[in-house]
Amino acid sequence: MPTRKSFEHLRCSVANTAELIGDRWTTLILRDAFMGVRRFDDFQKDLGIARNVLTDRLAMLCDNEILLTRKYEDRPPRFEYLLTPKGKDLFDVIVAMWRWGDAWNPPADADLRILVHQECGSPTHGVVRCEHCNGDLDHRNTRLEPLLNVVAARQSAVP
Amino acid sequence: MPTRKSFEHLRCSVANTAELIGDRWTTLILRDAFMGVRRFDDFQKDLGIARNVLTDRLAMLCDNEILLTRKYEDRPPRFEYLLTPKGKDLFDVIVAMWRWGDAWNPPADADLRILVHQECGSPTHGVVRCEHCNGDLDHRNTRLEPLLNVVAARQSAVP
Repeated sequence: MPTRKSFEHLRCSVANTAELIGDRWTTLILRDAFMGVRRFDDFQKDLGIARNVLTDRLAMLCDNEILLTRKYEDRPPRFEYLLTPKGKDLFDVIVAMWRWGDAWNPPADADLRILVHQECGSPTHGVVRCEHCNGDLDHRNTRLEPLLNVVAARQSAVP
Repeated sequence: MPTRKSFEHLRCSVANTAELIGDRWTTLILRDAFMGVRRFDDFQKDLGIARNVLTDRLAMLCDNEILLTRKYEDRPPRFEYLLTPKGKDLFDVIVAMWRWGDAWNPPADADLRILVHQECGSPTHGVVRCEHCNGDLDHRNTRLEPLLNVVAARQSAVP
């Protein structure tokens, strides 16, 4: 990977995430992993990615414990790539990107895929809701605050 | 921006989104825009980004109607950058990246920010739910299917 500026000084979880997965190829490798692709040659063929770039990105994802390797053949030794729990937790990021792409920059109908919620059987795009009141969250009804302010406000509200 | 391979051949909404925002700096410019940053010098100062890179990314975001410019001073003419509806709709992507970063790679407490849902007043990380049954969505209880398969299955299920 080319030398690039570290985002550590930005001290923010979005920056930390962008540092790891804010790269076009990495996003697509993860998409493929969620769709069940596991083997180097299958990633390569599906994405049309240069082998050295794929090697580099897979190594980075393993180093950061987003993917892990598992040997599936002894002679010659061959490995496949699986999502770790940390990797599986990126589901929301990939789904949010997919939802936005479907809404604003969709592929042709023939190529459209749909997410099916197996528990109710419905096609879904997913909605982001507040875990407390179940209301939809969006940029208008939320604000980002320093954690320390929120803690102080809650403490001063105690009667 | 350096010449790079187009992802058009991948025919997928994740690829289309990654094509536009799958870039570390672009992600952070969007984060700042959601936090209310509007002016070139403020983006530059907050991110420590090179001016030519910032110019390039802002132009790309405007070309793709994710940001728009508005003149805020006549002499000399100066412009600020605002999120369009298409840009505001990236909220879910940024929040999902932030949630994952908080869970797996958080900054120090002093730098933690928290999302507050103004309607109920609670700190929230957001959860992704099915818009039909309100169940949580994750990689285990969903599957991606070609749209045409789903349409065909629904038609054949009509009595």
